[in-house]
Amino acid sequence: MKWIDWNTLDEMERTAALARPVQARADQLRHGVERIIDAVRAKGDAALRELSARYDRCALDAIEVGEDEFAAADARLAPELKIAIQEAAARIDAFHRVAAPQPAGVNTAVGVRVERVLRPINRVGLYVPAGSAPLPSTALMLGVPARIAGCREVVLCSPARADGNCDEAVLYAARAVGVHRVFKLGGAQAIAAMAYGTGSVPRCDKLFGPGNTWVTEAKLQVSSDPEGAAIDMPAGPSEVLVIADAQANPIFVAADLLSQAEHGPDSQVILVSPSGTLLDSVAAEVERQCAALPRGAIAEQALAQSRLIQVDSLAQAMAVSNRYAPEHLILQVAAARDLLADVESAGSVFVGAWTPESVGDYCSGSNHVLPTYGYARSYSGVSVASYQKQITVQELDPNGLRAIGPCAATLAAAEQLEAHRRAVTLRLAALGMNV
Amino acid sequence: MKWIDWNTLDEMERTAALARPVQARADQLRHGVERIIDAVRAKGDAALRELSARYDRCALDAIEVGEDEFAAADARLAPELKIAIQEAAARIDAFHRVAAPQPAGVNTAVGVRVERVLRPINRVGLYVPAGSAPLPSTALMLGVPARIAGCREVVLCSPARADGNCDEAVLYAARAVGVHRVFKLGGAQAIAAMAYGTGSVPRCDKLFGPGNTWVTEAKLQVSSDPEGAAIDMPAGPSEVLVIADAQANPIFVAADLLSQAEHGPDSQVILVSPSGTLLDSVAAEVERQCAALPRGAIAEQALAQSRLIQVDSLAQAMAVSNRYAPEHLILQVAAARDLLADVESAGSVFVGAWTPESVGDYCSGSNHVLPTYGYARSYSGVSVASYQKQITVQELDPNGLRAIGPCAATLAAAEQLEAHRRAVTLRLAALGMNV
Ligand SMILES: [Zn+2]
Ligand SMILES: [Zn+2]
Repeated sequence: MKWIDWNTLDEMERTAALARPVQARADQLRHGVERIIDAVRAKGDAALRELSARYDRCALDAIEVGEDEFAAADARLAPELKIAIQEAAARIDAFHRVAAPQPAGVNTAVGVRVERVLRPINRVGLYVPAGSAPLPSTALMLGVPARIAGCREVVLCSPARADGNCDEAVLYAARAVGVHRVFKLGGAQAIAAMAYGTGSVPRCDKLFGPGNTWVTEAKLQVSSDPEGAAIDMPAGPSEVLVIADAQANPIFVAADLLSQAEHGPDSQVILVSPSGTLLDSVAAEVERQCAALPRGAIAEQALAQSRLIQVDSLAQAMAVSNRYAPEHLILQVAAARDLLADVESAGSVFVGAWTPESVGDYCSGSNHVLPTYGYARSYSGVSVASYQKQITVQELDPNGLRAIGPCAATLAAAEQLEAHRRAVTLRLAALGMNV
Repeated sequence: MKWIDWNTLDEMERTAALARPVQARADQLRHGVERIIDAVRAKGDAALRELSARYDRCALDAIEVGEDEFAAADARLAPELKIAIQEAAARIDAFHRVAAPQPAGVNTAVGVRVERVLRPINRVGLYVPAGSAPLPSTALMLGVPARIAGCREVVLCSPARADGNCDEAVLYAARAVGVHRVFKLGGAQAIAAMAYGTGSVPRCDKLFGPGNTWVTEAKLQVSSDPEGAAIDMPAGPSEVLVIADAQANPIFVAADLLSQAEHGPDSQVILVSPSGTLLDSVAAEVERQCAALPRGAIAEQALAQSRLIQVDSLAQAMAVSNRYAPEHLILQVAAARDLLADVESAGSVFVGAWTPESVGDYCSGSNHVLPTYGYARSYSGVSVASYQKQITVQELDPNGLRAIGPCAATLAAAEQLEAHRRAVTLRLAALGMNV
């Protein structure tokens, strides 16, 4: 891990110290994805079978998961894991319901009612990767808010294993949260299928979920096409920033850094502390714990890019964090709750010694699909609102039009939009009021 | 206007009947905008001056509007217009406050607190076009929610006139809603300046507002670049769909169709009714009213593309509307409020005979920056939420970790993320609990 003393750096060096790995949209990737999308649009299910054979090395029988496969998954899954999935789903449900948008309304003048109503996005497509391991937790994080929003059709794609089946835990989680249809598709072809539809896969209005660079590029391309689909947010490698003080437990801090590092070689891991002693002991502890990890080799690659940043105060630590805008922010300091007010940009915040990032990944109730790569400056994580449209409604009675019609007419005249003005004035005239 | 009998059409013909004009991202436009963005990134303010001279035909002295210009605008503006701007701002403020997201929190288990807190996006950039006429109302619609959200710096760009000054009403409206800095910039160069920053213009985290095809293309390009800025939503030509029954007043309906048609030659105007008589009388009335409009020639071009669709019931009319997903939906039917429950996709809804679209454009309190071009299927109009990040927070005490830690550990094991599991289990061990 690279040790950096923040106060010896100039502005340029500070920017460099917080730089993320460049995500070049290589032409090769871009064109590769374009070809996949074109193939799916042109040849539909036939293209999906070809691409699955080539990339996922599996010969798909049916593209859609059938009842027998759901039943088999249910029968094979360990009871302990089923209970954990149900428990996690219940807590995700509890928090997402409380945080869901509510209808609102107000009379902005006598006779002028203005409301905001909520409607589900009709058909949504969820993507659950299965790279090094299947991710049932992602099925929960994407499926629960879709169910609360009331989306009419919830579609999920996840790549099949070489044996042609989807992971049992993913299937069980999808069913547990009310996903309507599951397709054995991965990669850019899954995104293309959900964005444009094929014989088997219904066309979806909005797509959600993480994925590798192919999936990410495909989501970017379909979201730039008015014929395509909206997406949840842009994506980049996962990341954590930990703020710790001298009283933090280095064993806990090291464990949190490693749980981020094991996600992948491009994971970003940053520890910021006013205590040099803490930085030292965490560095040693990271080395010790990493040696015992099955994914230690992956974690080591991520750690080679990671940073230990010494600052002169917790206030400066928070300034560094806000500048970086981390996906995950862990506060392992004595008065962690007090720092919260100063958090400006982050995806999700973990407060205090007993809140490892793992609980947010799985079962505290918050969502783990979060803005990475600095997008936390302007984007939010997935929530019920991500699956809804907020529609405004206005209703005027004659008194309402008398009250605000003249104002509208004045502004329309100033903008030289005479038809806009007349739509008001000829109604006012019908009410015996001449403007 | 083209008359269509919905029930004589097959599926393909129905799709064609509701087709929007193709928005081809012509290579010429794309490359032209790329060149402008590159120039602004490379040469900053110097590029802004050159491009303003070339496209807006004005020689910019200062790029930023100074105090003297605000004062002069204030002195020159008609008192009636100032009052209308203040009144509109107050009603927009009242509705947007009521509809703003609220913090939320819940204990998802004993000792597990999960919250959602709100933070403003730090620096936002608003774009106010001034094509055929300046649009002070757009400054209100973009500025009011930014102020309510508490954005630290609100920047606004609007093109200068040939005399080098911005429109007085736009300046007055910007000041009325607390915009911090105004720059005399238009087109793709304004978007580039706000996305990347120049010597004069600060770099913004998110950009808002309508614009011509150059502005729209520039917003798309900067939002696809991780170094660029987020944007409010994709854009297309403005549009209205009116559902009217036999009891609707054809004079009112015609006036509403024309107020949409006068926006531009590519405006979309659709009237859907079960009453052939109503369709006939509206068509005649449109022709009569259009003849007297200053922007009648523009409206006529839009009307040439517009459609009168006869359906067999109000339920079918609503199905047509939901399939089209209009930006503006006007319900001019006897029991308009009752139809509201069936609205699935629309930007903003206008209920009943006394609610012309103009009031929503200006001063009912709702926002007029809305999803067009079918994006109402998955996007919402601008609101306070558009200017905020929703950050989740979790805080566990030891009992909380005892309660949900085992669930997290089980799921981490299933996903083969051992470091995630250990971040939980070594804390539980410290609490004397072995999993
Ligand atoms: Zn994780
Ligand atoms: Zn309008």
